[in-house]
Amino acid sequence: MKKNVIVGQSGGPTAAINSSLAGVYRTAKDRGAKKVYGMIYGVQGLLEGRYIDLADHIKTELDVELLKRTPAAFLGSCRYKLPEIFEDKSVYEKIFQIMDELEIEAFIYIGGNDSMDTIKKLSDYAIVTGHPTRFIGCPKTIDNDLALTDHTPGFGSAAKYIGTSMKEIIRDSFCLEYSKGLVTIVEIMGRNAGWLTGAVALSKGEDCEGPDLIYLPEIPFDLNIFTEKVKKLLEEKNSVVVAVSEGIRLENGEYVCSMGNQIDFVDAFGHKQLSGTASFLSSYIAGEFGCKTRAIELSTLQRAASHAASRVDILEAYQVGGAAVKAADEGDTGKMVVLNRLSDDPYQCGTEVKDVHKIANDEKLVPRKWVNKEGNYVTEEFVSYVKPLIQGDVSPVMVDGIPRHLYQPEELRNRKKIKK
Amino acid sequence: MKKNVIVGQSGGPTAAINSSLAGVYRTAKDRGAKKVYGMIYGVQGLLEGRYIDLADHIKTELDVELLKRTPAAFLGSCRYKLPEIFEDKSVYEKIFQIMDELEIEAFIYIGGNDSMDTIKKLSDYAIVTGHPTRFIGCPKTIDNDLALTDHTPGFGSAAKYIGTSMKEIIRDSFCLEYSKGLVTIVEIMGRNAGWLTGAVALSKGEDCEGPDLIYLPEIPFDLNIFTEKVKKLLEEKNSVVVAVSEGIRLENGEYVCSMGNQIDFVDAFGHKQLSGTASFLSSYIAGEFGCKTRAIELSTLQRAASHAASRVDILEAYQVGGAAVKAADEGDTGKMVVLNRLSDDPYQCGTEVKDVHKIANDEKLVPRKWVNKEGNYVTEEFVSYVKPLIQGDVSPVMVDGIPRHLYQPEELRNRKKIKK
Repeated sequence: MKKNVIVGQSGGPTAAINSSLAGVYRTAKDRGAKKVYGMIYGVQGLLEGRYIDLADHIKTELDVELLKRTPAAFLGSCRYKLPEIFEDKSVYEKIFQIMDELEIEAFIYIGGNDSMDTIKKLSDYAIVTGHPTRFIGCPKTIDNDLALTDHTPGFGSAAKYIGTSMKEIIRDSFCLEYSKGLVTIVEIMGRNAGWLTGAVALSKGEDCEGPDLIYLPEIPFDLNIFTEKVKKLLEEKNSVVVAVSEGIRLENGEYVCSMGNQIDFVDAFGHKQLSGTASFLSSYIAGEFGCKTRAIELSTLQRAASHAASRVDILEAYQVGGAAVKAADEGDTGKMVVLNRLSDDPYQCGTEVKDVHKIANDEKLVPRKWVNKEGNYVTEEFVSYVKPLIQGDVSPVMVDGIPRHLYQPEELRNRKKIKK
Repeated sequence: MKKNVIVGQSGGPTAAINSSLAGVYRTAKDRGAKKVYGMIYGVQGLLEGRYIDLADHIKTELDVELLKRTPAAFLGSCRYKLPEIFEDKSVYEKIFQIMDELEIEAFIYIGGNDSMDTIKKLSDYAIVTGHPTRFIGCPKTIDNDLALTDHTPGFGSAAKYIGTSMKEIIRDSFCLEYSKGLVTIVEIMGRNAGWLTGAVALSKGEDCEGPDLIYLPEIPFDLNIFTEKVKKLLEEKNSVVVAVSEGIRLENGEYVCSMGNQIDFVDAFGHKQLSGTASFLSSYIAGEFGCKTRAIELSTLQRAASHAASRVDILEAYQVGGAAVKAADEGDTGKMVVLNRLSDDPYQCGTEVKDVHKIANDEKLVPRKWVNKEGNYVTEEFVSYVKPLIQGDVSPVMVDGIPRHLYQPEELRNRKKIKK
């Protein structure tokens, strides 16, 4: 590389997105890039002229290692969607003007579906206007819903955390005896794709029976059949554990989480209260059977728990970042790096680049055949697919009993101060 | 020891309670106990004649190591309180009859306040009736609210998990920009004692600013002052993170979590919906400022996350189990093992035994001087007290990417089957 590289992060954060950033930085430096800039809050921040020189933050080999172990988006992220080129050219002109000022040779964007849409539009614009900058996308999402890639960095670490936590929750649920039993409903992220929810099955093994029921958003949810199923299980077991995706819907498309809000609930202060899927189902089951229930949302932790990250995931995220820079350096543009699995056992996986036009805005769901006939558990094939992605650990760098991260740029911490 | 030992677990499970069980087992065996029985579901199960021979489950050195790393109560637990001796002697007669049949020389009970009440009553009864069995309590509770002991096994691992998770949540909260900012409310266990909630301050360090506000149940909560505080913080920062104990109350004693339910909320199915403290406060703040809010409950995970346990905690739990057996073997009864801290730095801590009559039913709260004047953060003294307890890790035994535990006795897993 002869000039400079700029890299941005976009969409929901993960435990592995910063490992890709580390991979981009190191490979760009190794290939001779003079400067590696980081967009603050993705392309949205770039449009406001907000960026940093990554060399001010990554000064040592240890910093690279810390960055790999730092959760969430080091550079900040955005959910900004570029307008169509024919709708508003000025946005594009502004971005390219900033890039020219910074002498950008390669633009790397780490993100999910929306981010690949950004790569597609920017590379199209460059081609149409004859601009030499190259645009490469780096896949990232805990949701694992990107097309054309075997899986996405970020998913493996989230799946490992979910499998581990589910196993701990199941153990905990068997501790106390309740006269009418205990039903625990665990809610997992994923509006449309059930990859993360299915990962609860990883808890099943020689030392744990796993959860009793798993409901993915791909399969319509039937409240009556569910209730009957729980009733039967309560007759056999003292503790019933159910995993549900936040996005499960009824046959008519209504979200289960919205069923708890059919009567507008306004508290004494006039604020509307919303309940989640697990919270609704647990009150519903408690009402039906008078049993003890518990609703647990894995919440932010499932995407941020870098203390329990998967080694395979963190290393692949790093490789994918490097492969993006390599592709740009070798002249590719409008491409996304994908992971191509060669075999399950022994697990072998390499990187390739694919045309981003074939990826953007397409959602990869869990295939129907990877869910059992009743629609309440994932199959062995699903588990075999996920298992290689959660292998190995990345020991956190512990300082005084707590994992150390690479400190966030001040631009994120005191944004409003900086802006004034 | 010449005869047998019986051990039970009681109260809420922790990540360290099984390490105490391992300590009891090993020390009893080392000191010549013929059999070590485990009560299934504590003294409540014992009254129904439910117990196991631990040798059927702990067969190898590896099993001991797995047990140390297994969360929740291996034997099952109970929240049973013995009647006063003068109220109902028959319960005592039954327990002593079972113990005589099993030739029990020492009765070890691992638990919190209620469990120490059990030790007190049983040892009193033995003394009054001239029965030779000795009764020793082993402290255990994530709440750290037991009197006379410097701290309780289980607390250190929960504190480490809470500090680590809080740090990850804070990082995540700075990823996206929201026009009116983001307020994250994290709810932590502890009805009356704020030890666990204060542990969020462990997230603060060179690479993290820590949470903005910490509210313990010891200090009355003022909704207006809180709201003003958040308003000011939102003017300075893009992301405000608040930690609250589930048990925070208003000056008049009303639980904050119950404020969200001042209007009875019954959903379309006739079931009452309850909201937690974080859930109420986050809707309240959203209503006041129109900002984005997020409510996170650390829930069961904070007591069950053995994958992130503290080495100091797991080892101390093991020692405490051993010290209980030693005390009984040397003739003590009606005592609880306590941890006696000799120094903070270097951390030194030993075990002693103290009269259980001085411990039972007494609750140790966070001292007022360890909370700042405004009542919204813990002091450096608090942090110095907790820090030694979260040091070091206990590497999980990983099998196929997920931590391995010692499989639970079948008596717990298929309770109803066994009973029939």
